[in-house]
Amino acid sequence: MSAKHAKQSFPVDQVRRYLEPGPVVLVSSFAGGRTNIMTMGWHSIVAFNPPLVGCVIAAGNHSYRMIRASGECVINLPTRALVDTVAKIGNVSGADVDKFAAFGLTPQPADQVKVPLIAECHASFECRLHDDAMVDKYNYFIFEVVAAHVAPVPAHPETLHYTGDGTFMVAGKTISRRALFTKVS
Amino acid sequence: MSAKHAKQSFPVDQVRRYLEPGPVVLVSSFAGGRTNIMTMGWHSIVAFNPPLVGCVIAAGNHSYRMIRASGECVINLPTRALVDTVAKIGNVSGADVDKFAAFGLTPQPADQVKVPLIAECHASFECRLHDDAMVDKYNYFIFEVVAAHVAPVPAHPETLHYTGDGTFMVAGKTISRRALFTKVS
Repeated sequence: MSAKHAKQSFPVDQVRRYLEPGPVVLVSSFAGGRTNIMTMGWHSIVAFNPPLVGCVIAAGNHSYRMIRASGECVINLPTRALVDTVAKIGNVSGADVDKFAAFGLTPQPADQVKVPLIAECHASFECRLHDDAMVDKYNYFIFEVVAAHVAPVPAHPETLHYTGDGTFMVAGKTISRRALFTKVS
Repeated sequence: MSAKHAKQSFPVDQVRRYLEPGPVVLVSSFAGGRTNIMTMGWHSIVAFNPPLVGCVIAAGNHSYRMIRASGECVINLPTRALVDTVAKIGNVSGADVDKFAAFGLTPQPADQVKVPLIAECHASFECRLHDDAMVDKYNYFIFEVVAAHVAPVPAHPETLHYTGDGTFMVAGKTISRRALFTKVS
């Protein structure tokens, strides 16, 4: 189940190309000698220099406590091959299960944080907590992406996008309208 | 170019089904007797009861001034049929152009706000500013969705998801893993 193409170092200011389309992501964490993984659909880019990602991590989640304790996480990008794993991870608590072991996922050492990457994912973005001002009110964290790793192919991976009711939309074809962009970003 | 199916009233606490997959949206605004439209890709659900949407509206945008002045906007969901319009709207300023007129879009009266809906879009979410605490620091607005209008078909519209470099990913097929969800949401 490992990714077909190994990830390579990737510019952090271009991470938006993978997160702006709105995929479900797997967030890995590490605290107190244990790892965990959660699914996350409520995230967006907040800035690209420095690269900031804002997201909601519900206070009831085991990951919430781990990420508040460590101030770190890794945002991993799963693709269609992992759809069963994504669904299962979102429906069990890390308080009960070692999710790397239970779901056959491979932890890989990160460069800048103590949290492991998920080898089977197309991309992994190492994050450090940047601003917790909105955590108490909204469970809303702003992270800075401090290192990024992306498989070079395919250029447009088949990411998963949650539409509710247990259903995922799989990323479809791409269409370029570059000729209409006066300021490409 | 009008939407094939008229929009109907839709429960605001289910708006996440359309925004969580991460589509590019068209944000309409109204202030000082004028309307405007901008494209937006940096948004996410923040809560679903009350339904809150957080998003970045860059301070340099004409829409930023209008939305700060009125405290209102409408988030409209375009589909593939509007891809040229989406690209063009994102590359011209409302300070220079009446975008409804210039792009042949039809303004429709909203229920709760003074901002017009865009008739040609699959869905329109009327929003009122809920929290501006992060606006000065991050241009980050939190809106409450106060009314929602969605075309009943298709159930999974061909939304557009921006991947950078003038390229959009079009929503692909859906796959259900409902059987793996112990807590469907």
